[in-house]
Amino acid sequence: MRIDIITVLPELLKSPFEASILKRAIEKGLVEVHLHNLRDFSLGNYNQVDDYQFGGGAGMVLMAEPIDKCISKLKEERVYDEVIYMSPDGATLNQGMANGLSLKKNIIILCGHYKGVDQRVRDLFITKEISIGDYVLSGGELAAAVLSDAVIRLLPGVLNDETSALTDTFQDNLLAPPVYTRPSNYKGHKVPDVLLSGNFPKIEKWREEQALKRTETLRPDLLE
Amino acid sequence: MRIDIITVLPELLKSPFEASILKRAIEKGLVEVHLHNLRDFSLGNYNQVDDYQFGGGAGMVLMAEPIDKCISKLKEERVYDEVIYMSPDGATLNQGMANGLSLKKNIIILCGHYKGVDQRVRDLFITKEISIGDYVLSGGELAAAVLSDAVIRLLPGVLNDETSALTDTFQDNLLAPPVYTRPSNYKGHKVPDVLLSGNFPKIEKWREEQALKRTETLRPDLLE
Repeated sequence: MRIDIITVLPELLKSPFEASILKRAIEKGLVEVHLHNLRDFSLGNYNQVDDYQFGGGAGMVLMAEPIDKCISKLKEERVYDEVIYMSPDGATLNQGMANGLSLKKNIIILCGHYKGVDQRVRDLFITKEISIGDYVLSGGELAAAVLSDAVIRLLPGVLNDETSALTDTFQDNLLAPPVYTRPSNYKGHKVPDVLLSGNFPKIEKWREEQALKRTETLRPDLLE
Repeated sequence: MRIDIITVLPELLKSPFEASILKRAIEKGLVEVHLHNLRDFSLGNYNQVDDYQFGGGAGMVLMAEPIDKCISKLKEERVYDEVIYMSPDGATLNQGMANGLSLKKNIIILCGHYKGVDQRVRDLFITKEISIGDYVLSGGELAAAVLSDAVIRLLPGVLNDETSALTDTFQDNLLAPPVYTRPSNYKGHKVPDVLLSGNFPKIEKWREEQALKRTETLRPDLLE
């Protein structure tokens, strides 16, 4: 898989892709992530990529032309399955969408910043708008990192133990059951006996019950 | 405001706080963000912070003691309003929650990793569990960055133009209207005439209509 991220702040995205699971996935060649600085496609001598909005109002808007130039250059090089714009207006990301995107070959992710991008960019170039949740961020960069992380960890071979992703929260519409590790007694607070019993069918049953109970209590909407 | 983030991967969180709006907010002294490496509170000679889960199964679990030690040390130094655990099981972050947290003085954010933290940590120390959405990430670090960004940008003085946050998507349960910037005609695709009219009451009316229309089309649930 290849992910191209277009941003005015590539430096913000450096460390998330240079640590942990994403770093290993890139090193193993399971995914390529390319950061493109929108200013490399800017206009005139001032590296302009944004301007005031028509009609007045606070906040700058990313201009159509630099984005058009960057996307067009990438599209000349390969075919893209999706050109995604991270926006609070988009479809809310969920695990099913992450699963679907993990099957794609090449995707572009455009990060908005300030007041967003010129509407014509969205009308002409964007195939999918995705929101990571009902809150506003200072830019699309962290949202792009979140989307990339959610997708990349699902690629075969990325997680050390492939069963680990299958038992995640949301993969079966249930929250995960509680987990415990050593010591079995921490300052008087004990691990449930069943987990120390060595009776694996019983442990499995307990975990299913706990997952269901937790989901009913905290997120009944997932069960509907 | 002060935010203390506890993580096994502080290096992952470096660049988001060293760029753009978060960097400026820190430099202006409007917020302090402190990253704490859980390994500094680890056990024994192997810097152990995680272990296998009781009852078997894939994935490592962060142990109670290092987290206890780190949180206890911080609590000795000052009073915290909230000790937040980033978890897909938590209450789903929305703009109202971000507004509420932006009024707090000191908060701790604990990032899970691998299969999460020992349940006893959640039972004993955590006052609030927050999820940034219904998807699984490789750790709580990006979620902590997202939460921090959503909250910090609301602090007075952080955004250059305070009216900018007030006109954001979600602040009035509506998506934002389309925005346009120069040129008024981009390869034959024109900006709506009203935005070029200079008639500000008319522009305001158009924006309200567009915001409502967009919300009705894309996110009717916000209007319920």
